[in-house]
Amino acid sequence: MRAEIITIGDELLIGQVVDTNSAWMAQRLNEAGIELYRITSVHDDREQIISALDEAFRCVDLVLTTGGLGPTKDDITKHVLCDYFQTHLIEDQRVRTHIEALYKDRPDVLNRLTATQWMVPEAADILPNRVGSAPLMVFHHGPQMLVSMPGVPYEMEIAMTEQIIPYINNRRLHAESIPRSWGIIHKTLQVSGISESALAILLEPFELLCGAHLAYLPKDGIIRLRLSSYGEFTPQFMDHEFWHLKQCVKDYLIAETDEPLEVIVGRMLQEKGATIATAESCTGGKLGVLLNKHAGSSAFYKGTVVSYATSVKEQVLGVPAETIKAHTVVSEEVARTMAESVRKLLNTDYSIATTGIASATGGYTKDEVGTVWIAWATPNGTFAECFHLGKLRDQITDRACMKALIGLIKKLKTES
Amino acid sequence: MRAEIITIGDELLIGQVVDTNSAWMAQRLNEAGIELYRITSVHDDREQIISALDEAFRCVDLVLTTGGLGPTKDDITKHVLCDYFQTHLIEDQRVRTHIEALYKDRPDVLNRLTATQWMVPEAADILPNRVGSAPLMVFHHGPQMLVSMPGVPYEMEIAMTEQIIPYINNRRLHAESIPRSWGIIHKTLQVSGISESALAILLEPFELLCGAHLAYLPKDGIIRLRLSSYGEFTPQFMDHEFWHLKQCVKDYLIAETDEPLEVIVGRMLQEKGATIATAESCTGGKLGVLLNKHAGSSAFYKGTVVSYATSVKEQVLGVPAETIKAHTVVSEEVARTMAESVRKLLNTDYSIATTGIASATGGYTKDEVGTVWIAWATPNGTFAECFHLGKLRDQITDRACMKALIGLIKKLKTES
Repeated sequence: MRAEIITIGDELLIGQVVDTNSAWMAQRLNEAGIELYRITSVHDDREQIISALDEAFRCVDLVLTTGGLGPTKDDITKHVLCDYFQTHLIEDQRVRTHIEALYKDRPDVLNRLTATQWMVPEAADILPNRVGSAPLMVFHHGPQMLVSMPGVPYEMEIAMTEQIIPYINNRRLHAESIPRSWGIIHKTLQVSGISESALAILLEPFELLCGAHLAYLPKDGIIRLRLSSYGEFTPQFMDHEFWHLKQCVKDYLIAETDEPLEVIVGRMLQEKGATIATAESCTGGKLGVLLNKHAGSSAFYKGTVVSYATSVKEQVLGVPAETIKAHTVVSEEVARTMAESVRKLLNTDYSIATTGIASATGGYTKDEVGTVWIAWATPNGTFAECFHLGKLRDQITDRACMKALIGLIKKLKTES
Repeated sequence: MRAEIITIGDELLIGQVVDTNSAWMAQRLNEAGIELYRITSVHDDREQIISALDEAFRCVDLVLTTGGLGPTKDDITKHVLCDYFQTHLIEDQRVRTHIEALYKDRPDVLNRLTATQWMVPEAADILPNRVGSAPLMVFHHGPQMLVSMPGVPYEMEIAMTEQIIPYINNRRLHAESIPRSWGIIHKTLQVSGISESALAILLEPFELLCGAHLAYLPKDGIIRLRLSSYGEFTPQFMDHEFWHLKQCVKDYLIAETDEPLEVIVGRMLQEKGATIATAESCTGGKLGVLLNKHAGSSAFYKGTVVSYATSVKEQVLGVPAETIKAHTVVSEEVARTMAESVRKLLNTDYSIATTGIASATGGYTKDEVGTVWIAWATPNGTFAECFHLGKLRDQITDRACMKALIGLIKKLKTES
């Protein structure tokens, strides 16, 4: 089965909103064995929506649209779909009851505009939207199908997970004689410490022999290597190829999955029953945010001190003013003291500290920008390393977080 | 002038990477008075790329592609463009010198694969990529134009800013008789404290009379209202309509621009010569990261204490164990003490504290999830408020950050 996503909204095409929905939906589609053929973003414009629908139905079995379902005038998706599928709006009692219950304590929401939300296309299958007012609509177009969802990310995510994917699976089970294939398989590992071109040269013999498709995804100092099969290989074959790939890159291997590094760090710490804290200057708390990003992180993450101002380094983290004077704030000595101090202050097993120059302000020159000292305080001592991470503020801080996590993963691996 | 963006890469269509480039490029295009008609994402696949190019050249004057220019086998954009424009690769001495200089200290990068990067299509105008190895390519297709850029965000951003936009402007100046129009104008304001449907009812009279197009963009408890004109109105007319819109929503107005709230907060603090710190529990440091996100933030932001663990609340922030015992960690009393304590500890004029329940772990029930206490400590006293921010972890913490910033903006406004 092949799908296309059409995201609808002027805000996407003037750059006011980043389309995060499509990547999320793509993952769910792939997991369900559905290949995503294309993503198209169009304006809230009747002609453009219709032409995108025509184009999509020429290529795919399943069209997913997001956006344009709000109660305000600028949202036209429902009306355009009505015309496209030659149907009209009728009141849906079930949707009405649901919306009235959802907003029973919100008289400011239960008004005549919200009431337009329980008017639905007669020809569509209507699925409830558990967390919002715009219902999900499924249209059938011969053997093809179109699903229309709201563009608000968490509404779309709940709709996809709880309604749409089960609905599609159910339809496929009944209507389709599924061709014998092994499903879509992606297997990803992560390496670091080698350039993309050097890695490609290293992997030339592997690529010559490998049946599956290999892709390189470099970002923030890490290269993700992805092996993909679109139904042609068995899981066992893919495991075998993946094992070979791992052997080839073993000297640079950081992770054997596509999981974010902070998830891997979290699991390694939990396996040890160990805790962590961070002391951050240039990364501004980003490393801590990564470490506490996922539910359950309180099992290993205790806290962060962001010492953006030098006074905070001195007074909260106890870095001696003389150390700063002798070595400057961006130095091995300061990074080490920050790491050791936050480990003691927050009473953790591990800690990471960052101090660096993320922009040419505060008396720093352009040449100095990108210099970052990272220190790791562990039960086996404190380690520090200096990095040069580019010239752009966000790039420097994102890469510093990755270097910090990679360093910790390496240390945790050596210990175990 | 009308443009289409084609982003090329399997990683986009299996959801391994979120396309942040398109929104960034859309903003630059709009600023340059170029309307972005459509965004299409396709696989690293010859037929798909060619069909996307055909489709784009049917609709627009300018096609911008990103991605598929790496030195590895999975990247095919350059070869496909060569075929499409019936040209072939030749060595470019200028690009070669640039790449050799860029990587003079990196023998691991200067290898035969990287050498393929200085082979460029003969028919294209080649513009240097200041920060990477893949050169920018401009192809002419009658009066139409195609620009191919790398997909790495910071390479693309520097390329667009320094090379592509000036190149396009220069071409338009010489080649095009620009039709008399006023350019694309977007004017956005931000409101809070009213539902989208209630706002739309409030604005019905305005919409009846308003010449420009009005769009509603709700996110994280804020609704952005955007007025747009695609060349039909003068800047003065748009200012006038915008003034009317502001009058209509004045009771809910948070900001008169589309700037992120943390930028507005930063400017207000700097105007006062005031400083800020945060003490964060449920938001995990996200609020501090927002406040130090932009260059120059060290002028007003001093630091953050993320007290994820209760022990950190007690030992670093000095919240008495009895207070926690009497009121629980998610309470007005704890939020107030956190705010006052971090203000004192980091010696700032203002501080914000957050403590809330972001997931049903640690003994909390589903019903309790979403409860967040926020406190603001100011020179005029400490204020606290309780919010209920939904049921999803990221949604709760993102909304809490917005509520924290909105609260501070309101306080700073009243004071001045």
